[in-house]
Amino acid sequence: MNTFGRIFRISIFGESHSPRIGVTIDGVPEGIELEPADFEEDIARRSASSVPGGSPRAEKDVPEIVSGLFDGHTTGAPLTILFSNDDICPQDYGQFDAIPRPGHADYAASVKWDWANDPRGGGQFSGRMTLPVVAAGVVAKKVLEGISFDASVIEVGGCGNRLKWPEMIDRAREEGDSLGGIVQCVVTGLPIGLGEPFWDSVESLVSHAVFSIPGVRGIEFGDGFRSAAMKGSEHNDPFGPEGPLKNGSGGVNGGLTNGAPLSFKVAFKPTSSISRPQKTYNFKTEKMDTLQIKGRHDVCFALRTPVIVEAMAAIVLADLV
Amino acid sequence: MNTFGRIFRISIFGESHSPRIGVTIDGVPEGIELEPADFEEDIARRSASSVPGGSPRAEKDVPEIVSGLFDGHTTGAPLTILFSNDDICPQDYGQFDAIPRPGHADYAASVKWDWANDPRGGGQFSGRMTLPVVAAGVVAKKVLEGISFDASVIEVGGCGNRLKWPEMIDRAREEGDSLGGIVQCVVTGLPIGLGEPFWDSVESLVSHAVFSIPGVRGIEFGDGFRSAAMKGSEHNDPFGPEGPLKNGSGGVNGGLTNGAPLSFKVAFKPTSSISRPQKTYNFKTEKMDTLQIKGRHDVCFALRTPVIVEAMAAIVLADLV
Amino acid sequence: MNTFGRIFRISIFGESHSPRIGVTIDGVPEGIELEPADFEEDIARRSASSVPGGSPRAEKDVPEIVSGLFDGHTTGAPLTILFSNDDICPQDYGQFDAIPRPGHADYAASVKWDWANDPRGGGQFSGRMTLPVVAAGVVAKKVLEGISFDASVIEVGGCGNRLKWPEMIDRAREEGDSLGGIVQCVVTGLPIGLGEPFWDSVESLVSHAVFSIPGVRGIEFGDGFRSAAMKGSEHNDPFGPEGPLKNGSGGVNGGLTNGAPLSFKVAFKPTSSISRPQKTYNFKTEKMDTLQIKGRHDVCFALRTPVIVEAMAAIVLADLV
Amino acid sequence: MNTFGRIFRISIFGESHSPRIGVTIDGVPEGIELEPADFEEDIARRSASSVPGGSPRAEKDVPEIVSGLFDGHTTGAPLTILFSNDDICPQDYGQFDAIPRPGHADYAASVKWDWANDPRGGGQFSGRMTLPVVAAGVVAKKVLEGISFDASVIEVGGCGNRLKWPEMIDRAREEGDSLGGIVQCVVTGLPIGLGEPFWDSVESLVSHAVFSIPGVRGIEFGDGFRSAAMKGSEHNDPFGPEGPLKNGSGGVNGGLTNGAPLSFKVAFKPTSSISRPQKTYNFKTEKMDTLQIKGRHDVCFALRTPVIVEAMAAIVLADLV
Repeated sequence: MNTFGRIFRISIFGESHSPRIGVTIDGVPEGIELEPADFEEDIARRSASSVPGGSPRAEKDVPEIVSGLFDGHTTGAPLTILFSNDDICPQDYGQFDAIPRPGHADYAASVKWDWANDPRGGGQFSGRMTLPVVAAGVVAKKVLEGISFDASVIEVGGCGNRLKWPEMIDRAREEGDSLGGIVQCVVTGLPIGLGEPFWDSVESLVSHAVFSIPGVRGIEFGDGFRSAAMKGSEHNDPFGPEGPLKNGSGGVNGGLTNGAPLSFKVAFKPTSSISRPQKTYNFKTEKMDTLQIKGRHDVCFALRTPVIVEAMAAIVLADLV
Repeated sequence: MNTFGRIFRISIFGESHSPRIGVTIDGVPEGIELEPADFEEDIARRSASSVPGGSPRAEKDVPEIVSGLFDGHTTGAPLTILFSNDDICPQDYGQFDAIPRPGHADYAASVKWDWANDPRGGGQFSGRMTLPVVAAGVVAKKVLEGISFDASVIEVGGCGNRLKWPEMIDRAREEGDSLGGIVQCVVTGLPIGLGEPFWDSVESLVSHAVFSIPGVRGIEFGDGFRSAAMKGSEHNDPFGPEGPLKNGSGGVNGGLTNGAPLSFKVAFKPTSSISRPQKTYNFKTEKMDTLQIKGRHDVCFALRTPVIVEAMAAIVLADLV
Repeated sequence: MNTFGRIFRISIFGESHSPRIGVTIDGVPEGIELEPADFEEDIARRSASSVPGGSPRAEKDVPEIVSGLFDGHTTGAPLTILFSNDDICPQDYGQFDAIPRPGHADYAASVKWDWANDPRGGGQFSGRMTLPVVAAGVVAKKVLEGISFDASVIEVGGCGNRLKWPEMIDRAREEGDSLGGIVQCVVTGLPIGLGEPFWDSVESLVSHAVFSIPGVRGIEFGDGFRSAAMKGSEHNDPFGPEGPLKNGSGGVNGGLTNGAPLSFKVAFKPTSSISRPQKTYNFKTEKMDTLQIKGRHDVCFALRTPVIVEAMAAIVLADLV
Repeated sequence: MNTFGRIFRISIFGESHSPRIGVTIDGVPEGIELEPADFEEDIARRSASSVPGGSPRAEKDVPEIVSGLFDGHTTGAPLTILFSNDDICPQDYGQFDAIPRPGHADYAASVKWDWANDPRGGGQFSGRMTLPVVAAGVVAKKVLEGISFDASVIEVGGCGNRLKWPEMIDRAREEGDSLGGIVQCVVTGLPIGLGEPFWDSVESLVSHAVFSIPGVRGIEFGDGFRSAAMKGSEHNDPFGPEGPLKNGSGGVNGGLTNGAPLSFKVAFKPTSSISRPQKTYNFKTEKMDTLQIKGRHDVCFALRTPVIVEAMAAIVLADLV
């Protein structure tokens, strides 16, 4: 299913090879001012050129709003935004049927869809599909007036010192290798009580959306995994007159926002496509083989993800508000 | 919404104070043998008496199957299972309106539902609602013939040595405090290719379900947060003739199962209800106050959760199969 | 799927042979007064003893509210209502596998579910499942305070003169035959603008729900089929200061309520189970055969349906409000 | 919500005034041959120029397939089809706020959305939105290989004699009036057992979809309203070796297809926009007024609907198969 959400609902379509990709957003309130320029900042934050070690490909990601907008304002009807895929390079996915790339969906997808040369392998799983998500995030943020989103990378390759990152990235690139990273997202200004008991807890919905981003390996709220080593008296957040006095819970109690900032961390794996040769199986020759992946890839794609994480949080929260 | 899943779909109902709680499961294939005795083992694993430091309350959790079963076999019609709430003790939730318990939903729920003395605070948020989930998990496991689920606690209070746990739990109980823990769940025998691109990745659905369990603070798959400090050449799982040669990804590539066991870890916070006095705000007197929570609580409720984590995984996978 | 609705959402469960049947209603607002006595009138209107020619079976349909109610008021949590199936008579559905009853689902169901002796044939398709629908309708009507529902039979066997019905019914019973009927439903007091453009027009949702009632053959709004023979100048409803001056549209324009009463008619077929011998095929002997259906059946089950039609309308409207 | 269906799922977007309109279809099986030419025939059947009395506007409705297609075959990913709205004429909907057009959504929409000059009145309710539905129908028919759809107008203005229609239409046009009509749709080649018990009966789903077409006033299956005047012995369809021997039920028993053709009739009202002056209320002057609607409208839009009715049936059946 290409759809997420109940009321503020996102449907994405397109693949890395299709002429266009896009998103339809249902449930946008009427009367919100919106113009293509509103998308520029967030789309730029996602672009490869915005980060060290990003792929040098130039993409012009200009949104075309084709429905749901009239005279510069949303109409309440479904809002559809398109992007062109100018940069389609016809890749030989056939070779990845023989030697599926470690860390990619090639192998699982080819079994799921019958070992056919299915373009979905390089299609729906593409990180390119996070572009319409970022566009939907821009609209969601507009809906969530007064609420602010701040996601940033706090660790690259296990290191929290930003000054060292450029050097680490250079070295990894030289070695033909890649790095992972951790993103922290903090949302402030939320009303108290968002979320639903049980299945639609805030954590359930945010984690559902965040794990849709390719390459996520873990998510934790507030004290997260560290809380499992704490005592109740340490981890509990006592209340003061303005709400919680600390934020071990990450802003959620019993699945509902509690007035503290919503705060969570997301672990991104290192980029799977590396130029270093990898020993892996060739399913055609039925022997171990050496795979060398060409092309220009991000050394640390985690650096491009904060705006995507923000978009996912905004999409979930716009649906709950 | 009290519902989870698309095809194998779970609807739970009831509250800690209602005469009964239960679950309706839609999408159960016809012809599966099922009898009340099938539920005993998993229900026993969830019971307080099964773990050290568990609450001494005795609960008789006998399932009554009221529809969807004929002559000992499922009929394909919705399967409804009921449990009695024999043990309803009328609690004074009023006091928690004045002094909301740290770590509980009291505060957020009372704001959400207007500071009324709403029994939902002690109702829908109750850990009691995991009982029908365990029952649904038993049915899901039956649907998933040949697939095995193995969840267990691997850490209590930060310690991975089981021999030390009884002592740690005794000490925490004496101090009126509580402990958290980490559960690891491994699912073997899964077909390759379960999951859907993007929104309904296996990780998205499992995390959605797992964060519905009260008290979860984090989830990670395979190498999890550690992967963010690894290089691509370390973290990638090369393939051999039988599939992945190691399992850094936790059995999922691109959101699809890849033939390796599905493997994830869940962090549970320490029990929020502790008998130690807690300094927190009294919203009636508008002063800081001291809250002492009476009653008998689990020292480390994480010990009762492995069967719930298994149930959640089984429910998700039965929906995907 | 056993579920209908988005926000006020109904899930029914049970079969004619199961120990209990029931309904879970999600999305009931909190604080509504509700007690078992509230259900008596509508349940009585559905009972066989309430109509001439009704089956003489005595059913005690006492609702048991097992969740979602506290201290005589709804809590906002899912509301589950159970009924016992005291009157289960183990029928030989095997014979209907050989000679499927004309007008029943026996044949289609046995092909769908593989010609097995599937109790669903006499299970989920049973008119008995309209009992939990009537119960849900009672709750929906409570939610729709100030809106009134009035459904009644306006034709039996093609005759609009009520005085003749008892005689017609007697004659049909003597002939071992059955009669159909038409029900008109009028809902007054609705706010203007209920319904959604396109897929979720009021007519779409009402017809969806109404065709779920076993035995419906047609539905029309306002002038209905007659409108196809009218001119625009005749059929159009001009407006006056209070809204439409006549009601050819049945209270709906462009899928939205327009302030006039919602008015529609439903055609019910004659009862399919007749005691008159019917020439039909025996799939075991592979020859035409004669089927004589025993048991006591309604001569004209349409007479019991007005309260069910009201319930369906109320369920749809409670979801839209 | 702009979405219909569960597995073969249609999301339409756009308004009469937006630059483009379109549809995203989720759940299209992979490997189906598809090219723009496949849409020509059905799109032509819907065009105004194809029918007597059709609006003389020329529309070039050329589908652009932007995703889900690779190398002339569907990929299994969401299929998005766009159409341009070349022919946008900026209408003065403001006047219809003062004098809402009888039979249109103007009044109900303006109350629903606050009497603002909301372009939705002339937007989402537009018959133009049936164009992407017809496109989705083409894809659904491809999915339903071996199943044939045949819808046609059987009555115009109450008359079943096609030879008289041109004359009737001419006269109505001269009088500035309009005509309604009845469409019959017959679907052959369906497998037995499609549909689900209760809520998702074939009739429920077909009627839901059909009532989404603007201007529908009624639907009936098989003997339809006439069945309410029949006896069980007349209406019941006895079985022969090949299935039902006649088709009073319209091909459905207990909500499931029974092997006979699915057969239903749809009543369309006369076109609401007529050039004859209409006496109706002016909500600005607060007096009765005379409304004369300019522009070129279909005399009998029912003539353009058979292909839309087929599309709706195909969409529902593709979801059930």
